[in-house]
Amino acid sequence: MSSVETAPLAHVRVVVVEPAGPLNVGAIARVMKNMGLAHLVLVNPQCDPLGTEARQMAVHAVDVLEAAQQVATLSEALVGCDRAIATTGQERELSTPLEPPRQVLPWLLETQQTAALIFGREDHGLSNAELNVAERFLKIPVSPDYTSLNLAQAVAVCAYELRQASLNAPEPSSLREFAPFEQREGYYQDLEQLLLDIGYLQPHTASARMAKFRALYNRAQLSPEETAMLRGILRQVRWALSQRL
Amino acid sequence: MSSVETAPLAHVRVVVVEPAGPLNVGAIARVMKNMGLAHLVLVNPQCDPLGTEARQMAVHAVDVLEAAQQVATLSEALVGCDRAIATTGQERELSTPLEPPRQVLPWLLETQQTAALIFGREDHGLSNAELNVAERFLKIPVSPDYTSLNLAQAVAVCAYELRQASLNAPEPSSLREFAPFEQREGYYQDLEQLLLDIGYLQPHTASARMAKFRALYNRAQLSPEETAMLRGILRQVRWALSQRL
Repeated sequence: MSSVETAPLAHVRVVVVEPAGPLNVGAIARVMKNMGLAHLVLVNPQCDPLGTEARQMAVHAVDVLEAAQQVATLSEALVGCDRAIATTGQERELSTPLEPPRQVLPWLLETQQTAALIFGREDHGLSNAELNVAERFLKIPVSPDYTSLNLAQAVAVCAYELRQASLNAPEPSSLREFAPFEQREGYYQDLEQLLLDIGYLQPHTASARMAKFRALYNRAQLSPEETAMLRGILRQVRWALSQRL
Repeated sequence: MSSVETAPLAHVRVVVVEPAGPLNVGAIARVMKNMGLAHLVLVNPQCDPLGTEARQMAVHAVDVLEAAQQVATLSEALVGCDRAIATTGQERELSTPLEPPRQVLPWLLETQQTAALIFGREDHGLSNAELNVAERFLKIPVSPDYTSLNLAQAVAVCAYELRQASLNAPEPSSLREFAPFEQREGYYQDLEQLLLDIGYLQPHTASARMAKFRALYNRAQLSPEETAMLRGILRQVRWALSQRL
């Protein structure tokens, strides 16, 4: 029963950006293992995730801590992922709506590739640029009297919902394939460079404008073929420019 | 919107039996406030629930800590409650099934009286006698690889589910009324004394046998009228005995 239950959860990577509290990191490892999640990625951690405090909070999930990947940037954390959900504790100016865990988390399980669930810093969450790497956005419904959840508690709620969703996950064979993160990122960078070269973008406003394009395409949940077609357009434009047509 | 959402949650009391970790108590207060729960009762706490560590973890929920009731026994914690759910992390030998949070927690909101959600100690949960004060039993579904949740994480999952349930809670006017804890407890004590007096129970096995009766009646979710009728039977038996009929 265990392997059937947890199979879709094996594709989910929990990504935590710059965690500063070792107790939180340990508690996250523990509740991940409680709920059948194994892959933790720490982006530029601001504490020692293998120190005494983290280990004490992890209790019997020290294996999850020890297997955790440490990377320097969020982009590195997402290599190989075909979809990502970013979490936020605040209302944001986004072109894509915030969704509650029960609605959005099952989507992470509808893939045969790797999916990422991204959490931000204890004190101020994810930046807008970091949010924009994701296709969908999660906000846990809370009381207006106190909206800020402890980081490890937020992970607990999401890990619990993921486990619930895994009990009803569809067969992977019936699923639409999405382009992995690095393929989409390659497209965005090609697009930005071209738009700079042709003077559509100005260097000082390029990243803000590109954020809107990223959000648009991420919301569309591009397939590998679609991403390849879009990159094909860029190549064709460059060729046409080189011919001075 | 806030008052409509949280109205049924105002009837729920979170009861924690002998918590030993001040960090846990603080984290419990915080996530309770996050989810719109305000009433915390600590049964014989084994740590200082108002010390520095608890306050630091509570952050902006120190008001929940300061308002927390401290009592000596679980019975005191349940006075005025017409229903209670006890949580367990382990399979138990109970005559009533263990239920997942999503299934059982909405029942706490289906009352105009006070309802209790009971959590046990960090290391070994609730005793069987403590479990038997409840009518229903909750177990959070976890991975067989690591079944023991941190106490505050378990509270987080349940508080989150309660908040979800509160958004769909039925109107209290359509609800069946249950007997409050102290009325049922009075009946159980009368019954035990009578059964001892007439030699049905032996002193050394009385509490084990009574546990089965308690579980049976709690499972039936006695109304005030039914509890009064049962006590009426006991009075009638005593009268008949006094008449040596």
